Amino acid sequence: MAEAGEPSDLFVHAITVQWADCDPARIAYTGQIPKFALSAIDAWWAERVGIDWFALNVDHRMGTPFVHLDMDFRSPITPRHPLFCTVMLSKLGTTSLTFRVVGRQDGTVRFEGNFVCVAVSADDFRPGYPSAEIRTRLESLLSERL
Amino acid sequence: MAEAGEPSDLFVHAITVQWADCDPARIAYTGQIPKFALSAIDAWWAERVGIDWFALNVDHRMGTPFVHLDMDFRSPITPRHPLFCTVMLSKLGTTSLTFRVVGRQDGTVRFEGNFVCVAVSADDFRPGYPSAEIRTRLESLLSERL
Amino acid sequence: MAEAGEPSDLFVHAITVQWADCDPARIAYTGQIPKFALSAIDAWWAERVGIDWFALNVDHRMGTPFVHLDMDFRSPITPRHPLFCTVMLSKLGTTSLTFRVVGRQDGTVRFEGNFVCVAVSADDFRPGYPSAEIRTRLESLLSERL
Amino acid sequence: MAEAGEPSDLFVHAITVQWADCDPARIAYTGQIPKFALSAIDAWWAERVGIDWFALNVDHRMGTPFVHLDMDFRSPITPRHPLFCTVMLSKLGTTSLTFRVVGRQDGTVRFEGNFVCVAVSADDFRPGYPSAEIRTRLESLLSERL
Repeated sequence: MAEAGEPSDLFVHAITVQWADCDPARIAYTGQIPKFALSAIDAWWAERVGIDWFALNVDHRMGTPFVHLDMDFRSPITPRHPLFCTVMLSKLGTTSLTFRVVGRQDGTVRFEGNFVCVAVSADDFRPGYPSAEIRTRLESLLSERL
Repeated sequence: MAEAGEPSDLFVHAITVQWADCDPARIAYTGQIPKFALSAIDAWWAERVGIDWFALNVDHRMGTPFVHLDMDFRSPITPRHPLFCTVMLSKLGTTSLTFRVVGRQDGTVRFEGNFVCVAVSADDFRPGYPSAEIRTRLESLLSERL
Repeated sequence: MAEAGEPSDLFVHAITVQWADCDPARIAYTGQIPKFALSAIDAWWAERVGIDWFALNVDHRMGTPFVHLDMDFRSPITPRHPLFCTVMLSKLGTTSLTFRVVGRQDGTVRFEGNFVCVAVSADDFRPGYPSAEIRTRLESLLSERL
Repeated sequence: MAEAGEPSDLFVHAITVQWADCDPARIAYTGQIPKFALSAIDAWWAERVGIDWFALNVDHRMGTPFVHLDMDFRSPITPRHPLFCTVMLSKLGTTSLTFRVVGRQDGTVRFEGNFVCVAVSADDFRPGYPSAEIRTRLESLLSERL
């Protein structure tokens, strides 16, 4: 599912944009696009770490509340083509994680953005990794970055 | 509806955060928060300009597709308190409009962000103002900024 | 906020339909309408019982999972008028609760529907009322029905 | 992708339920489930008719506004398993179309429901088929019903 211009080993999540996502301007509603990117990051966790956000919270009692996001919308998104979202773990701080997400349709970048979250205990929201194993796994995934 | 610390003449849009907005971490889902801010900007148009996004598009054939947004999440949002979103038109370029939105609950900033859109014709997405009157109205609203 | 044709003491929840709720047919997306009705039922709990779904779950450890809903869509919903949702507790079984919701815009019924949920413990999903007080309060609200 | 107990030639649409779909009860939010079913019906149009709702509206100027839906929720939906939605065109009136959708996770029915819409011209919302070809195609798909 890699698109031209991206190294083929990056994680790409395909989203079927539908009627439900579009507004009267006949394009995906702006408020829907951060949801597409977050959905791709959740899929990245499921595939790369082997634990999606639900299991991370419920089974591992770890949360990742977001503290920042920024997005540039390069071109409108429509249901005409699948939306391929490339997700990279671009930075790993002591407890912060930065994801870069680029969305493409039909070979054209539609959006790109950065999403920063913090690893916390799901019980008390205190920053930290409940599991050293998850942290180690994340470090190994940094090598995927461009 | 002005909150302490904001000049009282700024536009403030109150949102009732509900169960539907929350995820298993018992806070408003990250992907919902840009929607809150955009909803507040749409309410600003309705109240300050007198034309909401729907009427702008359908009646005036003007669109305002977004090209950028950035948000900092300062503190979790829950259904415990109303969410007061202050909206300011912070910058007006030739065809671009920048909004600043600050969300507060119980006197505490929960998020702040910037949202940049472009005035276009709804017919062909070309940048520009179909109506000089709307542009003039927007200019007069710039004086509201901090 | 009572509309013509409804006894004035019924609970009515006003919703501002926005651009974000509409699809390319320029009407509120079908999938959004059950959300409007559920939002009105949550508002009914907050106002009539004094406990919204979030507090019911988090503070009282009671849940109300839905087992059924049916809706008839009488007329399209648009951002042109506020959407007034009348909510009635129409039936109270041993553990089931049935709500009737009627949505009106500009004096015309847009949708009507029935929503059946079951009182459960939030800890183990077992049917029942964790609090006799809540049950008693609900019984008193049955008198509001048509 | 057919599940045990369904004839293998029925259309089945797989949905990845995520964190974003869940509420603090750790199950998919009720208001999200009609959206799952509608998303499956849109996917049915794309696959079986070869025209999704977006193309139907924009290219063929045909709309299918819904006039009724009813759903029974048999069991909670979570991100633990993919959600397989079987879609059948169960009835075809002069201008009405009835879909039956059954959602399963891990071999268990989670919801079942009926969704009735009306074929209309997208220009004036008048009932009818702008294209005899689409009507004929729909008739041929009725044979898929149970």
